[in-house]
Amino acid sequence: MIISDHVARYAVRLGDDSLILGHRLSEWISHAPFLEEDIALGNVALDFVGRARLFYQYAAERLEGDACEDKLAYGRDTQGFSNLLICELPRGDFAFTMCRQFLYDAFSLPLMQNLCGSSDERLAAIAAKAEKESRYHLRRSQEWMLRLGGGTDESHRRLQVALDELWAYTDEMFQSDSLLSALVQEGVAVDPADWRESWREMIAETFTEANLDLPVSSITQSGGRDGVHSAHMEPLLQELQYMQRTYPGLKW
Amino acid sequence: MIISDHVARYAVRLGDDSLILGHRLSEWISHAPFLEEDIALGNVALDFVGRARLFYQYAAERLEGDACEDKLAYGRDTQGFSNLLICELPRGDFAFTMCRQFLYDAFSLPLMQNLCGSSDERLAAIAAKAEKESRYHLRRSQEWMLRLGGGTDESHRRLQVALDELWAYTDEMFQSDSLLSALVQEGVAVDPADWRESWREMIAETFTEANLDLPVSSITQSGGRDGVHSAHMEPLLQELQYMQRTYPGLKW
Repeated sequence: MIISDHVARYAVRLGDDSLILGHRLSEWISHAPFLEEDIALGNVALDFVGRARLFYQYAAERLEGDACEDKLAYGRDTQGFSNLLICELPRGDFAFTMCRQFLYDAFSLPLMQNLCGSSDERLAAIAAKAEKESRYHLRRSQEWMLRLGGGTDESHRRLQVALDELWAYTDEMFQSDSLLSALVQEGVAVDPADWRESWREMIAETFTEANLDLPVSSITQSGGRDGVHSAHMEPLLQELQYMQRTYPGLKW
Repeated sequence: MIISDHVARYAVRLGDDSLILGHRLSEWISHAPFLEEDIALGNVALDFVGRARLFYQYAAERLEGDACEDKLAYGRDTQGFSNLLICELPRGDFAFTMCRQFLYDAFSLPLMQNLCGSSDERLAAIAAKAEKESRYHLRRSQEWMLRLGGGTDESHRRLQVALDELWAYTDEMFQSDSLLSALVQEGVAVDPADWRESWREMIAETFTEANLDLPVSSITQSGGRDGVHSAHMEPLLQELQYMQRTYPGLKW
């Protein structure tokens, strides 16, 4: 599926982040460490899948032909997805899931806040809804960082391992490309570089409080925005798209 | 875990129905036929797990010792669970899931409505919250019955097969026992026999509209209330309880 409309491509990009991260979170349902957390994780997962729907619906409206949210979610293969790599990494243990969530939420909240001022009204409206959710998500994942970081030796060790592993994937969140530059020019999108510094300060503060070391490695992983994904993406889509692949265009 | 308090046993019973059914519904997340339904099913699943928490919390408060919602959910084995067998049957195909949901929702709504008048204030309060959800659940599952029943030949055929298979498990919903009789005497619980006839009329009407034949078989399956479960229960608990079994009493 070649998407030439710029705004639609951007909407799909944001939808992909949400769908893939939502899927990874949904893998925890019935596997969370206790009932309360099980429900909370489930709700966050549904927030992200819901957000994906809104972005896909808007993208589909802008596209010619028979594009629809379900085609965008279930009808593209690995190369067609433009999500950040950090969203597709396996859920790992609970510390890994929460650390990823914190890094992403801390990025996502200012993204949505900024997008509220987009010259594209539809994107601004979706962002306004997503911002409220992101505020809650960030509060939750931040609390878990403190709880795990200040918990037992084991929880602290696992959290540090997770952070070290995830660090290489954070740079991609702030990278720009020709699509983004064009949309920033038009006032449709915002350049994440604008809040990279405040993002870094905010997470560094949490790490200090959680007694975690900020990783120093400068290795970075990227490619997701261009459809170049990790080896984890294919199995993820196999699971996510199984139903529609087995019964193409199923309606009943 | 031997539960001698009558009200606690009843609360656990209702909690078990909700937890096990919620788990089966949650198995659909990321596997539903389309995005909208994926989220809807996820929300219903979370409603049921949330309801289970409320019933378990109340039961735990009434019990001596270190009982808590997580022990009730994750610390009992098959024989300890008292859910209806219909709740534990594998999710099957989409028609099976929806047909089970319809049969159960049509039972659950009057149950919660009646329980709102319980002499036990806490049960009445939980029921008041659950009733609102059940109203929405029933509307949804009933719509699906009509949609699948009046859809393609294939969807109709699958739905009839599901109904025929599920029918044997509906009698158990209305059975009474010494616990229930005692609680009905005290005005704490209600006897489901009271609304069996209206339940039957209501579903029969939907079946007619959905062009389905009401099963005539009089074979019935029961035992769940006494901890005698189907072969599907053990693997279900293995999955549901995996995390707590692997890390007993995990806190971090």
